[in-house]
Amino acid sequence: MVTASAPGKVFCFGEHAVVYGEPAIGCAIERRARVTVEERDEGLKVHLDDLTLDGFTVEYEGDSMGRPDVDVADSLVDAGVGYINEAIDQVRDATDEYDTGFEITVESSIPLGAGLGSSAAVVVGTIAAGAAEMGLELGDEEIARRAFEVEHAVQDGQASRADTFWSTMGGAIRVEGDDYERLDEVDNLPFVIGYDGGAGDTGALVAGVRKLRDEYDFAADTVSTIGDLVRSGQRALANGDLEEVGRLMNFNHGLLSALGVSSRSLDAMVWAARDAEALGAKLTGAGGGGCIVALDDSDDTMTALQYTPGCEDVFRAELDTEGVRLE
Amino acid sequence: MVTASAPGKVFCFGEHAVVYGEPAIGCAIERRARVTVEERDEGLKVHLDDLTLDGFTVEYEGDSMGRPDVDVADSLVDAGVGYINEAIDQVRDATDEYDTGFEITVESSIPLGAGLGSSAAVVVGTIAAGAAEMGLELGDEEIARRAFEVEHAVQDGQASRADTFWSTMGGAIRVEGDDYERLDEVDNLPFVIGYDGGAGDTGALVAGVRKLRDEYDFAADTVSTIGDLVRSGQRALANGDLEEVGRLMNFNHGLLSALGVSSRSLDAMVWAARDAEALGAKLTGAGGGGCIVALDDSDDTMTALQYTPGCEDVFRAELDTEGVRLE
Repeated sequence: MVTASAPGKVFCFGEHAVVYGEPAIGCAIERRARVTVEERDEGLKVHLDDLTLDGFTVEYEGDSMGRPDVDVADSLVDAGVGYINEAIDQVRDATDEYDTGFEITVESSIPLGAGLGSSAAVVVGTIAAGAAEMGLELGDEEIARRAFEVEHAVQDGQASRADTFWSTMGGAIRVEGDDYERLDEVDNLPFVIGYDGGAGDTGALVAGVRKLRDEYDFAADTVSTIGDLVRSGQRALANGDLEEVGRLMNFNHGLLSALGVSSRSLDAMVWAARDAEALGAKLTGAGGGGCIVALDDSDDTMTALQYTPGCEDVFRAELDTEGVRLE
Repeated sequence: MVTASAPGKVFCFGEHAVVYGEPAIGCAIERRARVTVEERDEGLKVHLDDLTLDGFTVEYEGDSMGRPDVDVADSLVDAGVGYINEAIDQVRDATDEYDTGFEITVESSIPLGAGLGSSAAVVVGTIAAGAAEMGLELGDEEIARRAFEVEHAVQDGQASRADTFWSTMGGAIRVEGDDYERLDEVDNLPFVIGYDGGAGDTGALVAGVRKLRDEYDFAADTVSTIGDLVRSGQRALANGDLEEVGRLMNFNHGLLSALGVSSRSLDAMVWAARDAEALGAKLTGAGGGGCIVALDDSDDTMTALQYTPGCEDVFRAELDTEGVRLE
């Protein structure tokens, strides 16, 4: 029996623009999915416990999946088990062990579907723990690659390499096209996350930005401007100038709002954080609902968000410089 | 005794960027300041009645101003009377009548200091009515020029020609540097205005944008992007495509937010309007507080804003194609 854990992530800067080859910077956060894998004779048994749903267990052989006897939507069961099935296929491929069964237990402190990379963390943790259970300790590059294959398969080819990379490597990472650079000088970012309990429709949001960008030169320029802002953000992060990082987060949020991906609850949380004198605040991820990230090492933003209507959950989630690890 | 009225205005597109030579489009709105001027033997007597303050009357000769015996802050008295004093000086200059006195009664349905051009409307109305009372009907160009001189004097040289021009000419007007163009094809814009009862510090807001623009190329690009958006907005207005006008208003609001000139209450009102299915909504004017303008010919946005915490006043204010007029 082996346990591995892997962190979630936030976008500091650059979501949406990254789709068009602009740089983005994301940070692993101290919120982890812990995945325990134990070999067994045959079939899969999955226990999934997540912040945002009642835990459930399913047990099945091959494609015939049992339904858990709990009040959980089929779509959530399919999603959770879909990622784990594919991750176990990667474990089998890596270890050449196709006949054994596994019991997999997932405990995640990352809200599901909130843009914090919960699925990537579960997949990364499952691959690392599964391979280790079979006696093979995979390198980070291989874990990241195999985890991307899983997300690519489950998300109908719409996955980004970023989430699985961030979860595997930890720390602050700049991504631009296929290039990844770990920003080792960044080691302390006091993030506070506010969550409205919902989630935007990522596909529709990405399509909306694409339509604006195709139709208007000024929208295409706004996307490029985000890229330029990310370059300034990288310098501010490297200098440890958190006030400037916050100022740039605020600016980035406005540009995302212009592109139509903010929402009423996200803006309400962003303003609550700013009024609490957070250094900055922005939506993080696809938008349309979900999470904001604020920068504040005092408790004021936490308190303000707790009393903000529409904010369902608020937690501190500092930069996690460590990626996937065997526990 | 002669009465003249002149309309307030909203920025449809381009506030703040207009400071840097980008185009902006403003519209006169069906909210007017009515100014009645009556010749009398000597001195000035001013009755000022405004949406946002208890009416008051002051009577004085030359520079020695009496204080009204009402609960009105001295600063508001000074501001209101300051504009009227300078406007009467323009009347005297235009008519060569320096010895007569005037009794001036102002009734304004434009909230004071809310970015809706209330001072410009009062000044334009005072000059038009004052000159007419002395038997001289001034042309629009001269009224606009003299009204600008008044704003320039009272606002310590910080005035824009735009407000007085809009109020004099009416309709939708594009301004770019010293060029003004009336967009005669625009004749119907169903504006709804939400007012938070406050006002931003225009000087500080303009200085904040300047600082961002000086410090970051991406902020300078954001200002230019607003200019490009205004050009698209002009086409949409000319085509009568109100859906596109609304979409562009939303985008413009995001860019203004990026530049740091929105506020919690402005964003709350903007989202209330959008949730009520307004075609678009944005802050109008300097920002930091004050007014939003939404586009909606149904009553839904009005109703939504009436129930939005922080919205102190809401009213319909359609495009007014007529500028200053003698009543």
